[in-house]
Amino acid sequence: MKYTIAVIPGDGIGPEVTNQAKKALDAIAEVYDHIFLYEEAQMGACAIEATGNPLPDETIKTCKNADAILFGAIGDPKYDKDPSAKVRPEQGLLKLRQTLGLFCNVRPVKAYDSLIKNSPLKREIIKGTDIAIFRELTGGIYFGKKEVSEDGKSAFDGCSYDVEEISRISHLAFKTAQTRRKKVTLVDKANVLETSRLWRKTVTEIAKQYKDVKLEFLFVDNAAMQLILNPKQFDVILTENLFGDIISDEASVIGGSIGLLASSSLGKRNALFEPIHGSFPQAKGKDIANPLASILSAAMMLEHLGLHEEADAIERAVEKSLLLGITTEDIKGKNKYPASTSKVGDFIADYI
Amino acid sequence: MKYTIAVIPGDGIGPEVTNQAKKALDAIAEVYDHIFLYEEAQMGACAIEATGNPLPDETIKTCKNADAILFGAIGDPKYDKDPSAKVRPEQGLLKLRQTLGLFCNVRPVKAYDSLIKNSPLKREIIKGTDIAIFRELTGGIYFGKKEVSEDGKSAFDGCSYDVEEISRISHLAFKTAQTRRKKVTLVDKANVLETSRLWRKTVTEIAKQYKDVKLEFLFVDNAAMQLILNPKQFDVILTENLFGDIISDEASVIGGSIGLLASSSLGKRNALFEPIHGSFPQAKGKDIANPLASILSAAMMLEHLGLHEEADAIERAVEKSLLLGITTEDIKGKNKYPASTSKVGDFIADYI
Ligand SMILES: CC(C)[C@H](C(=O)O)[C@@H](O)C(=O)O
Ligand SMILES: CC(C)[C@H](C(=O)O)[C@@H](O)C(=O)O
Repeated sequence: MKYTIAVIPGDGIGPEVTNQAKKALDAIAEVYDHIFLYEEAQMGACAIEATGNPLPDETIKTCKNADAILFGAIGDPKYDKDPSAKVRPEQGLLKLRQTLGLFCNVRPVKAYDSLIKNSPLKREIIKGTDIAIFRELTGGIYFGKKEVSEDGKSAFDGCSYDVEEISRISHLAFKTAQTRRKKVTLVDKANVLETSRLWRKTVTEIAKQYKDVKLEFLFVDNAAMQLILNPKQFDVILTENLFGDIISDEASVIGGSIGLLASSSLGKRNALFEPIHGSFPQAKGKDIANPLASILSAAMMLEHLGLHEEADAIERAVEKSLLLGITTEDIKGKNKYPASTSKVGDFIADYI
Repeated sequence: MKYTIAVIPGDGIGPEVTNQAKKALDAIAEVYDHIFLYEEAQMGACAIEATGNPLPDETIKTCKNADAILFGAIGDPKYDKDPSAKVRPEQGLLKLRQTLGLFCNVRPVKAYDSLIKNSPLKREIIKGTDIAIFRELTGGIYFGKKEVSEDGKSAFDGCSYDVEEISRISHLAFKTAQTRRKKVTLVDKANVLETSRLWRKTVTEIAKQYKDVKLEFLFVDNAAMQLILNPKQFDVILTENLFGDIISDEASVIGGSIGLLASSSLGKRNALFEPIHGSFPQAKGKDIANPLASILSAAMMLEHLGLHEEADAIERAVEKSLLLGITTEDIKGKNKYPASTSKVGDFIADYI
């Protein structure tokens, strides 16, 4: 089969890790007799530098027409230091999510046995952790009305949600829970926010259609504690955009394996796959960044395209590299002969 | 000296832990020859039950006239389950913060050596952690415009900040940093939110008046990770209301000592002191809740009233109880003959 893949390497370590994912896909293509047509596109700081626009029209077009989108990372400290900058890399990603309607961000958080020792948490706390975080991605305060007063002395961000936005991702969360441990935890701040109360009401209604799934509620402040105190209590976490941003990043470090976590962002027609880690500018170009999350994003993408066996093949190769210790220094430690980014990619491709 | 203390026991375990704090204060009064006049007031679920109002006018008056306010905890699961409830316990606390202008919430997070073993995090990660979190408490999305559409199908929360609100707490944060390790970390989401960009701009300006203090910025999602990966990097954390709610609760569990963490909420004329832990309804009335955070809130209050020696005396008594293991089961474990709430209170009072 032939697939068109939009590839957005992005900023920082994005290009180097995405290259390794492409190596893995090329190996899959060879073994399973597929054709992956990569269409490279720009987004983020690199796009601003090249075109002045963090999300050129060309990129939107490429993404719309592709069977799936593989994305690296976005962001450059240059822009963070200047809060008054009108054009920022992140706008590219936000606009892409909005334009393609990628409303459902799924972030699986798993404690890999071989990586538990890298976790800041104690083994007995995290061993066995397996969470799927469903974060709403095209609503809430991210996309609300923004204002600065004329004198620049006050600022405003609006946060809205409607039943439709809440429902579509909730159904996906409940359906996923049915294939897992049958529990959904809604994270909100219903004791303070009107939007959270709408989430609670809507999700409570929807839960009635999934009688085999248990629904629990947790205030976001409490959730931030529970994730550390007892992450194993969670199966599927469902939450709005901003809480999902915070909670999923927090969750990503507990397993000691942020360099291995991939995520998908799903819309009605399009789907984007990316590592959870950011652009990590300090490591850019040094061939030391861990490519496994990007490679596993490619596996998630194959899964999404219905290529289950192919996805498994990548996952097995990743497990092998962990087992043999052919890994970058974030996992292996600086003094233990870590492999370079490209060496890890080569190994994965060869093994496949 | 004579001091009038407004005492708000509140809900859940609030009354039992506050009682122990009063025992400690009574002991201080005796030894140091002070008079503490307690004026009890109601707030929260208990106030709703008694008067229909989570914050009766009487309570506001009592608090306004007191030299300081000692508060227990708020909240009852009964109200959480019903998102459409018009009257909720938490409204009492929010309205009190607003009415008294308690804009600056300070939450010290310390890893007590004797409690590190209770932490979900590894010893080497947390040993030495000592953070002061400055959370803005009367602005942001907590107090913005709230709306539900007529058909109930969409909801809205507005978030605003102005330079004045940001400045007053920022000055306090920088001044505190000057007496500590001279670093302020502003936690925001300036890559997405207009209000965060105003925070960044304003705080950057203010920092120029505190040249001996280093200012750093961290996106809230990254902060949620860094708090777990390397909490020792932080000295003073400064942040807006909602981020402060999440981040400070997260931080409170890393030391294994949430039962020991106290906080102050400061306004121009009034100051309120409370444990960080919540109303813990499951433990209500069982005489098992840890009273140390409430007792340490009383110490914070004495400090605020300028009674430094007296505050030290309470802190020494708390340390002694930890050393001797005269502690409740959350610290000691169920099977190791934990002391009851009131026994811990008695010990502290006797020791003083
Ligand atoms: C880059 C940034 C705008 C983005 C977000 O906040 O959504 C990132 O943190 C993420 O989680 O994908
Ligand atoms: C009870 C609740 C409204 C409150 C808050 O969110 O501010 C609490 O969580 C806190 O942190 O004091």
